[in-house]
Amino acid sequence: MSDTKRLGHILDFLLLTDRFKTIERKGYIADGSRRETDAEHTWHMGLFALLLHKELSFDVDIGHVLTLVLIHDLVEIHAGDTYAYDDAGCAGQAEREALAAEKLFAELPADLGASLHDWWREFEDGETPEARFAKAIDRVQGFSQNYNSGGRAWRENGISRERTYQRTALPISVDPALKAIIEELYSRADVEKLWPAKS
Amino acid sequence: MSDTKRLGHILDFLLLTDRFKTIERKGYIADGSRRETDAEHTWHMGLFALLLHKELSFDVDIGHVLTLVLIHDLVEIHAGDTYAYDDAGCAGQAEREALAAEKLFAELPADLGASLHDWWREFEDGETPEARFAKAIDRVQGFSQNYNSGGRAWRENGISRERTYQRTALPISVDPALKAIIEELYSRADVEKLWPAKS
Repeated sequence: MSDTKRLGHILDFLLLTDRFKTIERKGYIADGSRRETDAEHTWHMGLFALLLHKELSFDVDIGHVLTLVLIHDLVEIHAGDTYAYDDAGCAGQAEREALAAEKLFAELPADLGASLHDWWREFEDGETPEARFAKAIDRVQGFSQNYNSGGRAWRENGISRERTYQRTALPISVDPALKAIIEELYSRADVEKLWPAKS
Repeated sequence: MSDTKRLGHILDFLLLTDRFKTIERKGYIADGSRRETDAEHTWHMGLFALLLHKELSFDVDIGHVLTLVLIHDLVEIHAGDTYAYDDAGCAGQAEREALAAEKLFAELPADLGASLHDWWREFEDGETPEARFAKAIDRVQGFSQNYNSGGRAWRENGISRERTYQRTALPISVDPALKAIIEELYSRADVEKLWPAKS
């Protein structure tokens, strides 16, 4: 493939990924004006990772963390966002996203497509230090976003304080600094009474 | 400062930066439904940098590039977005953004604030390989975004093909691969007749 053809191929992929800006998550941005998009969530995760990685009890290569963060949800361009508390949706999520990954990463030159596929798989597996941290940051950013938008998505979807543990258990287990951040968010959310009364 | 107090301080900053998701640029997302936000622009720049850095004729540390990208426009939380073709706005931009940087980065623990201030200054100066590439990618993403949204912002603001050279000259000068990408975008935009007729 000529350089120009290769670069055009990469450009096509970059133009396609604009769709990431229209995929909405369940959570809202802080001013409540609309839902957060995948692109915004991903940017914010990058900033969380950058500002918190030196607080961890283990070492990570921040360049590799940011790489995993950047591409971790890209498959949603074809698979769509699955709400973390949608048990039925989550049941088929892995298979749906694996198919989406095959389709999406095939739209790049083969070497780059293979790199993105490997990084996506690494993130999903969550076994390397960088992937453990990136997966934990995904949960921390999501939880803080719900707090920062006044708990609206929790109320709209009937998510109790107890039910959020299924999302926060991971960052709590990954590192003491992330545990402290999550505990601070619970404490603030309790003071502000952000969860619906128990049903 | 205790660890918990320090982490709460970082958390406050991360919550504050949610405002980045409400700062609109002049360009539109590809489906034309609304303007692109700073957060989305920054995420997309990160992906451009990740997928193009191996095509460059010089070496960059991608972790450092992504760091510069992540924080390069954060000062707009206080300074607002300045349209690249707004000559009056651009006249006071450097001073406005320097004041915004002082204010914004003071909202972090001192060591982190100093790092972000240094990175922001490095990006602005554009002298290291990573900053030259990041600044060039800022222009490439902006130009491609205008192309990808059918040239709407160019038409709305009366921006001629010739006037865009003041934004594209930088990436063209930085590297042959970026030059090829820009030329491909001009070629596609010409075929699709995206610029207003000369006045």
